[in-house]
Amino acid sequence: MTDLSDVKALVFDVFGTVVDWRNSVIFELSDFFAARGFEADWPDFVDRWKACYRPGMDEIVRGERPWRSVHDIYREALTGLLADFGAPPLDENEAEFVTDAWYRLDPWPDAVGGLTRLRTRFALSTLSNADFAGMVAMSKRAGLPWDCVLTADVVQTYKPDPKVYQMAIRLLGGEEPAKVMLVAAHNYDLAEAQSHGMRTAFIPRTNEYGPAQTTDLAPIGDWDLIAEDLEDLAQRLGC
Amino acid sequence: MTDLSDVKALVFDVFGTVVDWRNSVIFELSDFFAARGFEADWPDFVDRWKACYRPGMDEIVRGERPWRSVHDIYREALTGLLADFGAPPLDENEAEFVTDAWYRLDPWPDAVGGLTRLRTRFALSTLSNADFAGMVAMSKRAGLPWDCVLTADVVQTYKPDPKVYQMAIRLLGGEEPAKVMLVAAHNYDLAEAQSHGMRTAFIPRTNEYGPAQTTDLAPIGDWDLIAEDLEDLAQRLGC
Repeated sequence: MTDLSDVKALVFDVFGTVVDWRNSVIFELSDFFAARGFEADWPDFVDRWKACYRPGMDEIVRGERPWRSVHDIYREALTGLLADFGAPPLDENEAEFVTDAWYRLDPWPDAVGGLTRLRTRFALSTLSNADFAGMVAMSKRAGLPWDCVLTADVVQTYKPDPKVYQMAIRLLGGEEPAKVMLVAAHNYDLAEAQSHGMRTAFIPRTNEYGPAQTTDLAPIGDWDLIAEDLEDLAQRLGC
Repeated sequence: MTDLSDVKALVFDVFGTVVDWRNSVIFELSDFFAARGFEADWPDFVDRWKACYRPGMDEIVRGERPWRSVHDIYREALTGLLADFGAPPLDENEAEFVTDAWYRLDPWPDAVGGLTRLRTRFALSTLSNADFAGMVAMSKRAGLPWDCVLTADVVQTYKPDPKVYQMAIRLLGGEEPAKVMLVAAHNYDLAEAQSHGMRTAFIPRTNEYGPAQTTDLAPIGDWDLIAEDLEDLAQRLGC
């Protein structure tokens, strides 16, 4: 087993790993449109909306498009999706409010308790593809007890661009990657972190994408720790 | 009076504005060397040590030297200062521990209470020349309730380099400077923030540099708010 005694900071993927974006956004959309007398298959809508996210970021990581925020990626996709589903048209303020549903997200039940325990021994940071201000607002709303927030837009790219991991290693590890552990529910993210010498912890979130989820059901890689959830991670790290 | 209703985030200078670095570092040095049977004029020592800080940063802002962390600036100055004062020599671990005194700092008496109130209405961030990991460690130790941490080393320069203020405007204001207010005890810092369109609040800390302080005793500029301390700032901002 890897020696984890050098780890000083834990950095967390957030969407999926810490917060349940799918059920939260489904709830937000149902609620918003029910008040306007419109119903739809919101789980299907959210799955399609989320599907715009990775391709939108990948264009940027590959340098094919200039930087856009995650908010702008979702905002751009929203209008067409609403039309596809036959939803009533939204004015600009409404469309912004609906897009901001991606920051009105509830934590998984173990998240706040687990983070609170982990924070007693480690510096806790996000390491998320979300927008910085959005992550701050979401964390405040959800009561996530970070010591600091790092997001990919600080370096204007997205995970798995090496710049994101290098930022965490520089700012939280003093250029020593073994001082920083990434906690994530996604194997691709851990693989990139490990390739830079960071420590890695996998947390399965087998319902992140709903009951039909096919990816990241199990660890695919030689991760330093595998924990059931964030309370279990705290236990394994002696917190 | 400037309309402050757009302000969403408050960013704070920390050393001097939020924490009492001078008395804290004097205490740390007295304590460390008393245990080794050595006494000195520690206020004088700390004043000389602090005097290395601004010139060390200015060389970097002017591009005359490559990037160095604040820790490295202080660490480099320490050995010569100790020799000047006739202190017993330190090994590497001891010298690191003593340099880290710059992160074992106590808040001013109004700081934690004031920040806690302000946090109910605003996103709170540091905007400090300190090192990121050091700021995180110091804030944890002192119980400073930031929502996030921003430091000049994120963009590898120092205030008053415009890059530092632009980072805060981009990440916390969505490129709208009037959404971000700098709170500081130093007029030079507020002047630079204002020149970028940020809102400004001055907090006098007339004992920051000890009883003989001659600078920043009063506001020198058309700042949007002047408050006695952080509790008073919370009051003035309706928190």
